Amino acid sequence: MTLLKDQACFGGRQQTYSHHAHTLSCDMQFAVFLPPKIQLSPAPVIYWLTASINPRISLAAQAGIQRIAADLGIVIVMPDNRPRGAQVPDLPEDSLDLEAGFYLNATQSPWSSHYKMYDYIHQELPTLIKDYFNVTGKQSLMGHAMGGHGALTIAIKHPSDYCSVSAFAPMCHPSKHPWCQKVLSQFLGSRDIAWLNYDAVELLKNNPASVHKLPILIDQGDQDALYPLQLGTDALINVCKQFDIKAQINIQTGYDHSLYFVASFIESHLRFHYAALN
Amino acid sequence: MTLLKDQACFGGRQQTYSHHAHTLSCDMQFAVFLPPKIQLSPAPVIYWLTASINPRISLAAQAGIQRIAADLGIVIVMPDNRPRGAQVPDLPEDSLDLEAGFYLNATQSPWSSHYKMYDYIHQELPTLIKDYFNVTGKQSLMGHAMGGHGALTIAIKHPSDYCSVSAFAPMCHPSKHPWCQKVLSQFLGSRDIAWLNYDAVELLKNNPASVHKLPILIDQGDQDALYPLQLGTDALINVCKQFDIKAQINIQTGYDHSLYFVASFIESHLRFHYAALN
Repeated sequence: MTLLKDQACFGGRQQTYSHHAHTLSCDMQFAVFLPPKIQLSPAPVIYWLTASINPRISLAAQAGIQRIAADLGIVIVMPDNRPRGAQVPDLPEDSLDLEAGFYLNATQSPWSSHYKMYDYIHQELPTLIKDYFNVTGKQSLMGHAMGGHGALTIAIKHPSDYCSVSAFAPMCHPSKHPWCQKVLSQFLGSRDIAWLNYDAVELLKNNPASVHKLPILIDQGDQDALYPLQLGTDALINVCKQFDIKAQINIQTGYDHSLYFVASFIESHLRFHYAALN
Repeated sequence: MTLLKDQACFGGRQQTYSHHAHTLSCDMQFAVFLPPKIQLSPAPVIYWLTASINPRISLAAQAGIQRIAADLGIVIVMPDNRPRGAQVPDLPEDSLDLEAGFYLNATQSPWSSHYKMYDYIHQELPTLIKDYFNVTGKQSLMGHAMGGHGALTIAIKHPSDYCSVSAFAPMCHPSKHPWCQKVLSQFLGSRDIAWLNYDAVELLKNNPASVHKLPILIDQGDQDALYPLQLGTDALINVCKQFDIKAQINIQTGYDHSLYFVASFIESHLRFHYAALN
């Protein structure tokens, strides 16, 4: 690991590291916020999945999360959202969002040699964090939009590895969305069971008991241009009702998909995770 | 005034407007945060002078200021920091910082027809805000770096127009700094009395009694690459000591010049202004 940036922030440190990601066969960067208390005792970790940290400052670093994390004594890890580098192929432009690694393990050439964001977020990065920082081993997942999809799908499949999961405006049902279908077919091949493995609604439908001990919190703005059809929010609400899944889903009147929406509710997410992590 | 953006944020509204600025002979944009309470009763205003709001998201919108302003019931006006448009000349690149209008009234051609940021911030914009929004008429100034220079110089010259002034890492003594001297000579001509009129240290030295009722708060990181020589912080501290000026100047150990520094201390600045505005 190479420390690229190290800045004082709310009495703690906001840092950026680069490292070679074996899972992705490329070098990756991530940002991390270390609360002041980590100098005295181990702290729990939230993985905060949003837009890229590289090259532009990410949503993660802007939303005031550090203030609350400093106060509550939580480490925030802010990974990049896709593999990067000259050797990493880009998706064709008509498949949309080159920024989005979709938090899956690609099986199709040429993507399968690098696009393993699922394993990177769930396995490689937590191992690195536990080796390198003074953390308790307790961890939670949080994400925005496509990062919300990543947080939900990873936590639903590994509920015993995470104390809680939360999402802002998550993509809930990508296998039913034309725009996502294009990307899923590039990464995973034609429509099959593999798509359902990366779809929060389908995962809950197939195994609703998996999350009966996992605290789930979702905030969604009703003025979000992607809500509800493109995000599949209604399908998520329905599957939770149908199987009596105790997710807390808040529809926030007047809010959109932006930084201002995330900033307005991030304190409640961190307090939700804090209760589960301690 | 044309409303360009309008987003929910901490129960209030984060908006962007464009308008024709007569003072600057060009169209300008500014951002404004309206706290929830403004729907019920008039609110005081803080002018927050930082980097550009256009085209990139500014520091102003990132630092969590809206959370505290919503809570305290303060309107935050975030102006652009220079005139813009095809007809507005750019400074030569070797004069540095094309982003910086220096918050002065230029007297030299070709700058003098547009670079009147001093009058824009002190006169035109407050008149517009008072006409358009439900505000009390009480106002304060706050700024970062060059914006801190703007806030200090304007408030020192018009202490009865502002309830308080604060700055993060302000440029305190530009007339003594080679890099600023280049810009000042472009805007104001060769070194003369006009330079001293836009220099917080010189203004205080010449009329220390002007600020004896004006609350002043400054935070400065000791790891800021511009501290102390380029910012002239020591000269400001000395002039305050010499003339018994009651400015509160905090040197913050470990902090740099960045968003993280501003975010870490912005709550204390808003609470400082709140006490003076109410």
